[in-house]
Amino acid sequence: MRFDEAYSGNVFIKSHPSYEESKVVIYGMPMDWTVSYRPGSRFGPARIREVSIGIEEYSPYLDKDLNDLKYFDAGDIPLPFGNAQKSLDLIEEYLDGLLADGKFPLGMGGEHLVTWPVIKAMYKKYPDLAIIHMDAHTDLRENYEGEPLSHSTPIRKAADLIGPQNIYSFGIRSGMKEEFEWAKEVGMHLFKFDVHKPLQEILPTLAGRPVYVTIDIDVLDPAHAPGTGTVDAGGITSRELLASIHEIAHSDVRVVGADLVEVAPIYDHSEQTVNTASKLLREMLLGFVK
Amino acid sequence: MRFDEAYSGNVFIKSHPSYEESKVVIYGMPMDWTVSYRPGSRFGPARIREVSIGIEEYSPYLDKDLNDLKYFDAGDIPLPFGNAQKSLDLIEEYLDGLLADGKFPLGMGGEHLVTWPVIKAMYKKYPDLAIIHMDAHTDLRENYEGEPLSHSTPIRKAADLIGPQNIYSFGIRSGMKEEFEWAKEVGMHLFKFDVHKPLQEILPTLAGRPVYVTIDIDVLDPAHAPGTGTVDAGGITSRELLASIHEIAHSDVRVVGADLVEVAPIYDHSEQTVNTASKLLREMLLGFVK
Amino acid sequence: MRFDEAYSGNVFIKSHPSYEESKVVIYGMPMDWTVSYRPGSRFGPARIREVSIGIEEYSPYLDKDLNDLKYFDAGDIPLPFGNAQKSLDLIEEYLDGLLADGKFPLGMGGEHLVTWPVIKAMYKKYPDLAIIHMDAHTDLRENYEGEPLSHSTPIRKAADLIGPQNIYSFGIRSGMKEEFEWAKEVGMHLFKFDVHKPLQEILPTLAGRPVYVTIDIDVLDPAHAPGTGTVDAGGITSRELLASIHEIAHSDVRVVGADLVEVAPIYDHSEQTVNTASKLLREMLLGFVK
Amino acid sequence: MRFDEAYSGNVFIKSHPSYEESKVVIYGMPMDWTVSYRPGSRFGPARIREVSIGIEEYSPYLDKDLNDLKYFDAGDIPLPFGNAQKSLDLIEEYLDGLLADGKFPLGMGGEHLVTWPVIKAMYKKYPDLAIIHMDAHTDLRENYEGEPLSHSTPIRKAADLIGPQNIYSFGIRSGMKEEFEWAKEVGMHLFKFDVHKPLQEILPTLAGRPVYVTIDIDVLDPAHAPGTGTVDAGGITSRELLASIHEIAHSDVRVVGADLVEVAPIYDHSEQTVNTASKLLREMLLGFVK
Amino acid sequence: MRFDEAYSGNVFIKSHPSYEESKVVIYGMPMDWTVSYRPGSRFGPARIREVSIGIEEYSPYLDKDLNDLKYFDAGDIPLPFGNAQKSLDLIEEYLDGLLADGKFPLGMGGEHLVTWPVIKAMYKKYPDLAIIHMDAHTDLRENYEGEPLSHSTPIRKAADLIGPQNIYSFGIRSGMKEEFEWAKEVGMHLFKFDVHKPLQEILPTLAGRPVYVTIDIDVLDPAHAPGTGTVDAGGITSRELLASIHEIAHSDVRVVGADLVEVAPIYDHSEQTVNTASKLLREMLLGFVK
Amino acid sequence: MRFDEAYSGNVFIKSHPSYEESKVVIYGMPMDWTVSYRPGSRFGPARIREVSIGIEEYSPYLDKDLNDLKYFDAGDIPLPFGNAQKSLDLIEEYLDGLLADGKFPLGMGGEHLVTWPVIKAMYKKYPDLAIIHMDAHTDLRENYEGEPLSHSTPIRKAADLIGPQNIYSFGIRSGMKEEFEWAKEVGMHLFKFDVHKPLQEILPTLAGRPVYVTIDIDVLDPAHAPGTGTVDAGGITSRELLASIHEIAHSDVRVVGADLVEVAPIYDHSEQTVNTASKLLREMLLGFVK
Repeated sequence: MRFDEAYSGNVFIKSHPSYEESKVVIYGMPMDWTVSYRPGSRFGPARIREVSIGIEEYSPYLDKDLNDLKYFDAGDIPLPFGNAQKSLDLIEEYLDGLLADGKFPLGMGGEHLVTWPVIKAMYKKYPDLAIIHMDAHTDLRENYEGEPLSHSTPIRKAADLIGPQNIYSFGIRSGMKEEFEWAKEVGMHLFKFDVHKPLQEILPTLAGRPVYVTIDIDVLDPAHAPGTGTVDAGGITSRELLASIHEIAHSDVRVVGADLVEVAPIYDHSEQTVNTASKLLREMLLGFVK
Repeated sequence: MRFDEAYSGNVFIKSHPSYEESKVVIYGMPMDWTVSYRPGSRFGPARIREVSIGIEEYSPYLDKDLNDLKYFDAGDIPLPFGNAQKSLDLIEEYLDGLLADGKFPLGMGGEHLVTWPVIKAMYKKYPDLAIIHMDAHTDLRENYEGEPLSHSTPIRKAADLIGPQNIYSFGIRSGMKEEFEWAKEVGMHLFKFDVHKPLQEILPTLAGRPVYVTIDIDVLDPAHAPGTGTVDAGGITSRELLASIHEIAHSDVRVVGADLVEVAPIYDHSEQTVNTASKLLREMLLGFVK
Repeated sequence: MRFDEAYSGNVFIKSHPSYEESKVVIYGMPMDWTVSYRPGSRFGPARIREVSIGIEEYSPYLDKDLNDLKYFDAGDIPLPFGNAQKSLDLIEEYLDGLLADGKFPLGMGGEHLVTWPVIKAMYKKYPDLAIIHMDAHTDLRENYEGEPLSHSTPIRKAADLIGPQNIYSFGIRSGMKEEFEWAKEVGMHLFKFDVHKPLQEILPTLAGRPVYVTIDIDVLDPAHAPGTGTVDAGGITSRELLASIHEIAHSDVRVVGADLVEVAPIYDHSEQTVNTASKLLREMLLGFVK
Repeated sequence: MRFDEAYSGNVFIKSHPSYEESKVVIYGMPMDWTVSYRPGSRFGPARIREVSIGIEEYSPYLDKDLNDLKYFDAGDIPLPFGNAQKSLDLIEEYLDGLLADGKFPLGMGGEHLVTWPVIKAMYKKYPDLAIIHMDAHTDLRENYEGEPLSHSTPIRKAADLIGPQNIYSFGIRSGMKEEFEWAKEVGMHLFKFDVHKPLQEILPTLAGRPVYVTIDIDVLDPAHAPGTGTVDAGGITSRELLASIHEIAHSDVRVVGADLVEVAPIYDHSEQTVNTASKLLREMLLGFVK
Repeated sequence: MRFDEAYSGNVFIKSHPSYEESKVVIYGMPMDWTVSYRPGSRFGPARIREVSIGIEEYSPYLDKDLNDLKYFDAGDIPLPFGNAQKSLDLIEEYLDGLLADGKFPLGMGGEHLVTWPVIKAMYKKYPDLAIIHMDAHTDLRENYEGEPLSHSTPIRKAADLIGPQNIYSFGIRSGMKEEFEWAKEVGMHLFKFDVHKPLQEILPTLAGRPVYVTIDIDVLDPAHAPGTGTVDAGGITSRELLASIHEIAHSDVRVVGADLVEVAPIYDHSEQTVNTASKLLREMLLGFVK
Repeated sequence: MRFDEAYSGNVFIKSHPSYEESKVVIYGMPMDWTVSYRPGSRFGPARIREVSIGIEEYSPYLDKDLNDLKYFDAGDIPLPFGNAQKSLDLIEEYLDGLLADGKFPLGMGGEHLVTWPVIKAMYKKYPDLAIIHMDAHTDLRENYEGEPLSHSTPIRKAADLIGPQNIYSFGIRSGMKEEFEWAKEVGMHLFKFDVHKPLQEILPTLAGRPVYVTIDIDVLDPAHAPGTGTVDAGGITSRELLASIHEIAHSDVRVVGADLVEVAPIYDHSEQTVNTASKLLREMLLGFVK
């Protein structure tokens, strides 16, 4: 590097300089204002980018290399602090743009509510969309203490929009009784505790379908992801999550977009969670984009 | 304690059981959703209460004892996550109630924006209200990136309401050029860097006036208060802040309410800031209430 | 909440206000003065209560809800710092009272030695008592460097009182050679390393027996419970511990009391351990009380 | 170093190998079982020794060098966990031995109660002993919640033994009303808030007297010593404490022993407090021993 | 302990005082200057020794006791900061000495590059040496950004020296594509992701061979070892690593030396990793030395 | 921001996009391999940049604004891990380039040794160069345990090059006896403990002289800068350091370059030190560049 070159740090490792030439766009959604417990996921995307410099570009799992894929890290979408509705509108508009340009969207949260406007945009483009959702929590509330815009509601909103029978939730280990009952009644596919095994059974039924994959990092056990807002014991290992991503990669579903949310660096005292997130993103890039 | 008595932990030490008999009401305002930097002050009031069990009830500074004052810790006002306007409305309504009952309000933040509805309520009762404001930041913005409800705006709103000449800011060491210029133009009293000395000069001019005291913990140097959202070098020591509180206590102003805001426990790795906040509240109780 | 209502924070979530109407009493035993390594478990009960506000009231494992059970959180038993004998006497007296009133005792430590006086009280009421003990450590020493009152001795004392053949230890991975040999000689049931599997074999043999369950949080691997005094690699996962609790819940043993000890918040940098403890208590409440 | 030499790590830097030839003996008193708040000072001496390798041997304040003084670090006195009375007896016996051999005792705590048996031993040898006590707290209680052996009582016990008029306390900023009143009544010399200035006035009156200096690290502001059990805002800076030690060093009092207590590494997240303690010990060695 | 005995703290628990009589020599290699990511492993050996006081001397896995083996902890080899070549030369020379005296070398890193000079020394004595290597990373680079002395290169150097067919790597989950390809081409034995299972298959083929075992602590998942320079999700559990050590212990290979490297205490917020390392060393001592 | 614009995060706030048009060049020197104590300052520049987004652009101290100055943040100079000599050569070469282009160099360390090649380059251009050096440590060793390239030697090297009478050190509170003696003998200007006061006296004597200002963050007390390799009690406050920078800004010396070194984020648990460093850089930019 010559010292008079422009410095452009803090993008995900190997980000391609050209938006036009890139197949994938990585973007951050730094919003955490509706969380009921520990805030801080607004800083997730920035820290994931920073530590991405430490991961290898090659995946020994998939035998693929980041150098063989063109993706553009567009940075964080600027969102107004404390204004949930406006933030969600901005995200939807942003996604509309990306999809109009034919890009594969790979988002980083932020709280899980950011997935809601993304799904709205995806659904406009893919009317037969299915959602694969990995999470510790059902996220099926209609509102949280009266507030419809809450990090506990995105999957409910998605179910209402695209139909509950098109939602596949995995690894769920926490929620209100009413949420579990509602899921059952309306025919949502909700798998408790495990991810990899039920996923193996489900994937063949989704062959050929356009699928959006949303991963809440807290699907991992707190041992594997302490850096998140709500830690809940009894989760899966990072090995199982990696295997689940690879299972999707090797399946016949057509992944059309994905996100990884709820990484909160302030609780991540050894940078374990942000490094894990960074590795997961590499596997999602190499495994989901074809 | 007999084991069949109701347990009522987590109130400020020596809180009196009766609201009716108490002169002062302590309450928390656990809101942090408009902050532009590090969130987390929503947990301030709860942690301050917990560690209050470790402070002595006697002040060797004021030679007074908490046992000689009746105050009631009412807990936290329940506020809707991520909804700023509604939160502020609830706080104002709450204060209206307290003031109607003749109570001295002693609030704990939360972000500094919570002071805005409190001042609105105070001003309805005390039309000649003056404000003593200790802070690292001017908090004089009209809006923050377009958003009028922001933690950078409360003092500006207060100035617009009660008149800038009734605002006395101390210890300010950070702000936009425009904020400092505006303060000068409109005749606000803004003292940079120091608190105790300018306060000594100002207090006699406020003798007899009803005064609301709002203290942002970040007026302290980060060495003395690491547990806050925005750390800014060059602040005052805890000794100077204690001396400033005592200066007010010994003056002829009539303190009619006060708050201490922006304590964020997650960044307070040795519990230093919450302990300091707890001690400051003791001195505010013993020094401000007559 | 009206602001003039008494505030009663810091009890375990959904604690019932009436001792008389409650079936279960939750209580803390904040003692840590005989530990040979890292102290700090005295703060365990208080922190577990605080974070309990973050757990769901419903268990998707047991399909039960905290709202369907009446339990009363009586707070911490006040214990004299540094005086082990007096502390243990106070705990025993306290338990005598609870048992006389027909309550199900659910205790939170504190160091493991607090279980000793509880067992003394239980044994007076249930002469055919058996103990299920999950722990990383044997806790079978007669004394620790000459001191008979030590956190390394409670299970030995229990064995001497109720007979070693009535003690069932699981998950043990640390102890002196002499402790393991003693256990073998006297016919204690000591299972190394694993919990769930040997428990499945043992439970049928205990059908109908009154059983006290004592869980040292360090039976978990440090990955799952860093917040404890003695971290020891090679432990079980939180999934296995949850499954073990559920195994007992679905068995025919008659659980008559239980505790969870050695949670030390100061080493729990992401609040992972206290949250896990909080969830375990929910499962113990819903699974053990019938 | 040849690899077959015995390794003797973890002594205070430049500790002399021979007890016999040494003028001073450094020793740890790793006890913290009577503290009412945060335990952990039992690990203070060990950590202070470890980081001592990082300090320079030369004091630019005193223009003296550790290489010119012979002192022997004897390690920690082995104390029985949780047994206060026995621990204190062991310390007194240990000190009797040191004083019989004509050594200058330089102790490291441990909680402040460890100073009590040291003073008992010192007083047997020096009947005209005076005590210089630097602390945030009065430590003048007769008992703590009924317990006479508590970290809140050592100076009271000392006053009762050697006469309150021989106790000089500095920097005190916390205590019960009764403690301050008692000190006044019985003629103890108690100086609030400041150390250096009142010390300058007092030292000439103590010229020639044998003096024991006991420093509780919490006399420092939490900004300067977060790593201690009880943090209390409004303390002195490390510069003032260093100046105070040097003031004594340059005075005509005859220091006959000293200690530094209440360093608790677990709360000392940047190792600031243990490093400061290490430097203070260097200055005490070079300044107090003549 | 009498107070006039020499204190020799900070050696691994139960270290024998005599080098001559000891079969094994434990030594630290506190070097971390070529790491490309987070430095700090230079402090690994010292912290592992300190916490070793907390482990039991008996292994319930192997039914052996440290008291039945003589080993001498020689402390850290003094290495010049920032000078990689000189440091490596010093380590090789040190090992030559140990091996000439017939000692079993058990080293603690430090970064993984320290293993390179150890292997050079071992190979001089054992020309038919095989290496068992457990690690997250291939460590097979020829150089790192042009620098041949890097923590990414030791296994490559070893392969070039003793022949790639004599290197057995386990648990590998990270590396450049070229490294994996090279390993394949030259006939190195590289097993991805798992350790225990492939080890079971390989060990019989190594029966009777002299084997050096080098364990990079990051073969463990970050959940089990956050305190290391490079955390990488998807690793093995501490149970699997313990089982792997025991598998070797029970096999017919002839372990002639071993090391455990890359423990970095600064990232190890609950002392979990150093405690785990301490336990692993106990198992290596009891399992590898015959 | 449109999503297809190139993202260029992680530069110091308000960095100008054009090297050519900029008067000042900011650059990082991420080297920490010769430090004898705690490494980690290699990450200083990156973290300072990141948090710079949180500082105001306006200085109320100097009444100047970053928007009125053009500076270009060139990122970090890529340096080879563990190779000190090569790193220093690269830095010197880099500076030669900057100075040839007429830029004002503003560097961020890294360890203090990085200042040595900068001074070599500066001296080639300014033969009458004087150095203002603020530091806790003398940094005057000829070598450190035999190694001439050490973080303890840069000022000695500078003195040998430009003449000791041209070196002005302030705030020094640590060093070997020989270093202080050498400074005295050769006529270096070394001021112990204080910075602002002696600086006020010295500055007039340097009027018109080209001056390089090098600030080691550890000149601050650990209370004000815990995030550094070597914490040493008795330092100055951040207020005194700010005042010292302003004193230089208002003087008649001609600052021709400056640096701020030894910021180590890993020990900076509340991000206090990196935020302070960011503010100091703003004041250095606005105060030193004319």
